[in-house]
Amino acid sequence: MAKATATANANIALVKYWGKRDDALILPQNSSISMSCDGLSTTTTAEFSEKYRSDTIVINDEELKKDEKNILGHIERIRKLAGIQEKAKVVSESNFPVAAGLASSASGLAALTVAAAEAAGLSLHEKELGILARQGSGSASRSICEGFVEWHKGVMPDGSDSFAESIVRKNYWPEFRMIATIVSTEKKKTGSRAGMKQTVETCPFYGGWLRTVEDDLNIIRKGIRSRDFALVGSTAEANCLKMHALMMTTKPAILYWIPETVEVMHAVMAMREQGIEAYFTIDGGPQVKVMCLQKDEREITKRLLRLKGVQKTILCKPGDGAKLVNKHLF
Amino acid sequence: MAKATATANANIALVKYWGKRDDALILPQNSSISMSCDGLSTTTTAEFSEKYRSDTIVINDEELKKDEKNILGHIERIRKLAGIQEKAKVVSESNFPVAAGLASSASGLAALTVAAAEAAGLSLHEKELGILARQGSGSASRSICEGFVEWHKGVMPDGSDSFAESIVRKNYWPEFRMIATIVSTEKKKTGSRAGMKQTVETCPFYGGWLRTVEDDLNIIRKGIRSRDFALVGSTAEANCLKMHALMMTTKPAILYWIPETVEVMHAVMAMREQGIEAYFTIDGGPQVKVMCLQKDEREITKRLLRLKGVQKTILCKPGDGAKLVNKHLF
Repeated sequence: MAKATATANANIALVKYWGKRDDALILPQNSSISMSCDGLSTTTTAEFSEKYRSDTIVINDEELKKDEKNILGHIERIRKLAGIQEKAKVVSESNFPVAAGLASSASGLAALTVAAAEAAGLSLHEKELGILARQGSGSASRSICEGFVEWHKGVMPDGSDSFAESIVRKNYWPEFRMIATIVSTEKKKTGSRAGMKQTVETCPFYGGWLRTVEDDLNIIRKGIRSRDFALVGSTAEANCLKMHALMMTTKPAILYWIPETVEVMHAVMAMREQGIEAYFTIDGGPQVKVMCLQKDEREITKRLLRLKGVQKTILCKPGDGAKLVNKHLF
Repeated sequence: MAKATATANANIALVKYWGKRDDALILPQNSSISMSCDGLSTTTTAEFSEKYRSDTIVINDEELKKDEKNILGHIERIRKLAGIQEKAKVVSESNFPVAAGLASSASGLAALTVAAAEAAGLSLHEKELGILARQGSGSASRSICEGFVEWHKGVMPDGSDSFAESIVRKNYWPEFRMIATIVSTEKKKTGSRAGMKQTVETCPFYGGWLRTVEDDLNIIRKGIRSRDFALVGSTAEANCLKMHALMMTTKPAILYWIPETVEVMHAVMAMREQGIEAYFTIDGGPQVKVMCLQKDEREITKRLLRLKGVQKTILCKPGDGAKLVNKHLF
């Protein structure tokens, strides 16, 4: 048996994933596009060994008691795939606040997938890693890949064509920036898994989402390939607002925004009115991520930090996919 | 010629009006239901006289320079209907902040309609007053009527069946309360007239709104008649969130919420979790109106005033329709 360490970046979606067509396999209703974020990373070490009596998971120095993300299920999935019995110890560290809408489950499950698969003796390619990571956490499939990434929704019932793939690698558009603002480090109340299920079942606007998301995907894909920042930024911002509109019209309503979220949104819109190219996006939490180009990153960061509600900012560039850091043989 | 004074209450919609099928006649895409609010009133005096060289409008002691609401057009409409030529002087006072989402145009145009029609020598019934007020400002038609009011969208191209009517009079459910919180007295940036036109043209969710609004109307109508507070409150809150979801998915996006708006929304949701029956609704502005029953009005007001963003509250009960206060003959 072996012990392996892997690292993965969080990813921020430009076209969001919200709603599954298969809950067990985590197959999405729509494809999504994201940027793997150099700056928001998780490093995970996984070890399978006869010396362990049970699976242990330590996240940011705390032993996991309540397995909300079903990490144990993911370890079991990998164990089955490898045909082994040994219990695991997993130690994971993120360099950013967990469960507050900064895609910690994406980077965490992606790093876990790569480390545990390797430690279990599996030898998997990127596509297979993406399919495996997807079953742990949908958006984790995107964190497997580099740069700007599309997670293809696929059409097969077994999920074999629902995987992530780089649209362009990280050096294709190195000037693109995502500034994550930290407005709250509290854990969110509604997890995205329960939330998206309620949306698909109760939201009167979900059909309108599905009807328009293909257009958003086509525009963003084209915008990334042609490095058209205004096109990518404005389309991503509108797509984010569409997703939050779905959330707040779900029964019961899901409102991830807090006052500080809205403060940053207005600040970004005000910057645009003043000629500074900045767009926002928000995921299942209160944090606002601001998209801009390198030339404006200092000015925008300065302005964001002046806001009452912004505690800190984290600057992200297009980053790597999940990577094996090292592997120890015993 | 005569001079007449009328008073009208603002109204807060429980099922919102958002989108026109005819811009000139102000015919709505959907019916709406509101409460006429005793506590938010406008008093308007209108006079037609040969002594005036031009129309003059004074609102809250300030002469109107930029006629954003097309009040002059409404005076001209009434003048034509009465077949008179004399210019008008209109003096209007509201007891609450204007143009900040507290339905000042509804109470203002309703009071103007009643006062000016009377001063112009017209003798109109409630239905006719509603049709006339509607052409000045859609929601003003609802302020003509008492208690809980439905504005029927109608189907006729000439608008002759698009008028407001009381569902129940104010004493039918005297325990119902609407607590308006004042979080900002700034004038809003996007007027609702321009905003709703953009929504109808660009919002991918507008079809979903129209498909579900009839259900909301049926539920709220039934809830009012059976005085079922939880049913009315929860349906009105969800309807408000649907309207704001439409706004923020319009191109360009319309975001009326400010940080304080979201603070009050979360406070209301937290009260419910603690067993206090309170629901919110928000119109085209940052103010949050909190629905509750008389038994909880003191406790809820106390909690709202403790919030950082709330400057004051205004307590409203089901109120009168527009009323002539007096008429002077010369």
